Amino acid sequence: MFLDMPLEEAMSTQRAIRRLKPDPVDDALILHTVEMALKAPTGNNQQGWVFMVVRDRGRVRAIGDLNRRAWRLYSWLGRKLGLVTEKLEGIVKAGDYLAEHFGETPLVVVPCYKGRVPPFPFIANASYFASIFPAVQNFLLAARAANLGAVLTTLPLWNVRRLKKILELPGNVTPCAIIPVGWPIGKYGPVTRRPVEEVVHLDRYGNREFLNRPAITTVMDPM
Amino acid sequence: MFLDMPLEEAMSTQRAIRRLKPDPVDDALILHTVEMALKAPTGNNQQGWVFMVVRDRGRVRAIGDLNRRAWRLYSWLGRKLGLVTEKLEGIVKAGDYLAEHFGETPLVVVPCYKGRVPPFPFIANASYFASIFPAVQNFLLAARAANLGAVLTTLPLWNVRRLKKILELPGNVTPCAIIPVGWPIGKYGPVTRRPVEEVVHLDRYGNREFLNRPAITTVMDPM
Repeated sequence: MFLDMPLEEAMSTQRAIRRLKPDPVDDALILHTVEMALKAPTGNNQQGWVFMVVRDRGRVRAIGDLNRRAWRLYSWLGRKLGLVTEKLEGIVKAGDYLAEHFGETPLVVVPCYKGRVPPFPFIANASYFASIFPAVQNFLLAARAANLGAVLTTLPLWNVRRLKKILELPGNVTPCAIIPVGWPIGKYGPVTRRPVEEVVHLDRYGNREFLNRPAITTVMDPM
Repeated sequence: MFLDMPLEEAMSTQRAIRRLKPDPVDDALILHTVEMALKAPTGNNQQGWVFMVVRDRGRVRAIGDLNRRAWRLYSWLGRKLGLVTEKLEGIVKAGDYLAEHFGETPLVVVPCYKGRVPPFPFIANASYFASIFPAVQNFLLAARAANLGAVLTTLPLWNVRRLKKILELPGNVTPCAIIPVGWPIGKYGPVTRRPVEEVVHLDRYGNREFLNRPAITTVMDPM
């Protein structure tokens, strides 16, 4: 197989890469990365994905405009409200860089799914996105294993009508994410996350019985 | 690293496993699998996940009741409307099995995220789920690499109030998926999917320029 990076290594080093070289990316590599995305599950196995691969300069720049306008407001507001902690400062700087250089991104992948998103009931709303974001994550992991830089964004969705126009999408196809892709400036590295013991609750919210378990040593498989 | 299955192998064989043995699953293994889930990206790196691990029999059965009631209606409707094609028949049978045996599932993982889901505007709605379903997919891939069976479901979300009560979740934590987990009856195997050329469009919807590209052979990385 081609992308044979060990699973844990790919996951543990899948950082959001917002600084991308303008160098072109091989078509076959992108196709293969999308192919891996499509291994993810979809509701009723409907496989209703539409993956837009955008490298036409005019369209990439138009998506970049949508990104920049939202980013300006968003980052300004974040600073204004004092939400940009020291920890977030690096992300904001990288976001500034992306906003400025979006037009030079060699390609932008826009994962879409068939149908319109039902805002209600909750089960329908959640089930819709449960069919597209697993594929998005597969794409990001495959890109990481290929050493491609990529970052999951949603900012251009503030004007989804305009985005659909840029991509000439029909009414019944909904763009769900925007992923700038290219060879990274800089390197992938380990991600830092909250400890798992903080996130896991056993049986009922607040029960921390897992907290004092030892780290994994052996696994028994009764098969 | 522990889950060192090559990325493509994990993705290519990550089938939905609905037939699970009642044998227990090691706590440390589950914790580690969730730890891998948490490597996924979240909006603004907020890491607002809450992962419920449910193995209390009463609660597992209660979630199973929610699942079965929805499944009965759903599968009956699917048959009634002639939607259960030969291809889907296998899934429906496995769904019947899961509905019948849900209570014996050794554990159920319920990935949740902080906050309530904003149904509008679209960007907020999509961004919310963009912070949880990538982690869900990481969990499913890690489970696959550990040879654990798992399946992403949303059916119990038809009664999200009841589900929250079963798990004693506070108001500002939203369950987004329900994943029965256990050692699989039967084996993992390759998934079958639509060909990537059918799913990818270049620059504008309907443009099939990628269709006649050769399969991947070499990759050039300008780094």
